[in-house]
Amino acid sequence: MNEALLLQLEINALNAAYAAALDERRFDDWPQFFLEDGQYVVQGRENFDRGLPLALIALESQGMMKDRVYGITQTIYHGPYYTRHVIGPAQVLSEEGDLVRAQSHYAVFRTRPGDSSEVYNVGRYLDELVRTPAGLKFRSRRCVYDSEMVLNSLIYPI
Amino acid sequence: MNEALLLQLEINALNAAYAAALDERRFDDWPQFFLEDGQYVVQGRENFDRGLPLALIALESQGMMKDRVYGITQTIYHGPYYTRHVIGPAQVLSEEGDLVRAQSHYAVFRTRPGDSSEVYNVGRYLDELVRTPAGLKFRSRRCVYDSEMVLNSLIYPI
Amino acid sequence: MNEALLLQLEINALNAAYAAALDERRFDDWPQFFLEDGQYVVQGRENFDRGLPLALIALESQGMMKDRVYGITQTIYHGPYYTRHVIGPAQVLSEEGDLVRAQSHYAVFRTRPGDSSEVYNVGRYLDELVRTPAGLKFRSRRCVYDSEMVLNSLIYPI
Repeated sequence: MNEALLLQLEINALNAAYAAALDERRFDDWPQFFLEDGQYVVQGRENFDRGLPLALIALESQGMMKDRVYGITQTIYHGPYYTRHVIGPAQVLSEEGDLVRAQSHYAVFRTRPGDSSEVYNVGRYLDELVRTPAGLKFRSRRCVYDSEMVLNSLIYPI
Repeated sequence: MNEALLLQLEINALNAAYAAALDERRFDDWPQFFLEDGQYVVQGRENFDRGLPLALIALESQGMMKDRVYGITQTIYHGPYYTRHVIGPAQVLSEEGDLVRAQSHYAVFRTRPGDSSEVYNVGRYLDELVRTPAGLKFRSRRCVYDSEMVLNSLIYPI
Repeated sequence: MNEALLLQLEINALNAAYAAALDERRFDDWPQFFLEDGQYVVQGRENFDRGLPLALIALESQGMMKDRVYGITQTIYHGPYYTRHVIGPAQVLSEEGDLVRAQSHYAVFRTRPGDSSEVYNVGRYLDELVRTPAGLKFRSRRCVYDSEMVLNSLIYPI
């Protein structure tokens, strides 16, 4: 079987587990999807398309992610909301040795208490993945979102 | 090939056929995705997360589903609308003997005549699947939705 | 491995590449997803369901698609917007010789400058695919959308 097709399946499974962890609010599981020195970046597509470095969030290790989770769950004051990730099947861009590059389009929906669900954030994941004994891990996940709006309330990871 | 990855593909195919049947209004096909004594439950995540039993809809057999279809198509007075399911790739949670547990995130969009499409209901399918001679069937499909709203008009199955 | 399951993966990969080309505005790549005499049709489901021929857009060759791309990028005056396709896993309907029939449900989100993302167009792709030396190509892609609305601004391909 074609290697890229098999990789699609593996990344789909990873994305589904990632989405489930976030949407079920198991935030402590979230850093474990990354390498210890993995990167997590949330960036508007205008900046990304122009090669500009400015990003809304840029975390450069599991430690920074754990810190972020602590902030989300313990210290940041914010209105509560649920998230729901719907992620399309992955596109495998390249595979060189242990490093896989892939991207997936996502839509995140937000539901605030007593309100209906709404489109919250859409964009694409640009990923660098590494095969480890514990399965595929993100060396880098860059969430490139389409809209600059509603970000004042972007609390939970995308 | 990894068994869980193969199962992902099979469940993706099942979900796509399920979504097509509903969105193309082939409601008579819907009960056939379930075992004869299969369960179909639509439940808000607040109740689900707390382990509370209250559900919006709880059907416990193909017979009850057929009755529901009869209601939808023949007796319930309601404004017409189209539905469109977009379902992410499945996450296989476990496989023990014939029983597969899986979940998938879904977004259902609603389109009323003369109106634009809107987010209608988002959440996840929590499934128990059994392999039968006629393919995978739901022993149980639980639709856990994020919002308590717009349910006065939840007519068609999720 | 089941042939239809393998095809699902191939079509998922094709859909992901198709969506990426459009959403990243590589419009010149778009006609190359089709055979030279491939068809691209965008049609409301009311007309499709009734077997009526009227379609919003009906292109019957790569040449017509290139002309459309020229119009989009060079001549049509319109407000700019980003698109984001999220496409569910494909459902393989049949395979006969070289011809594969499949369908996939899609949601396209639109983001206008300075605005939040919104549901733009949802529906299904009804596809006829042919295996060529350069991979699967569309002999026909019919985008059957659920809503008659917002089409005054349907500029980019679905």
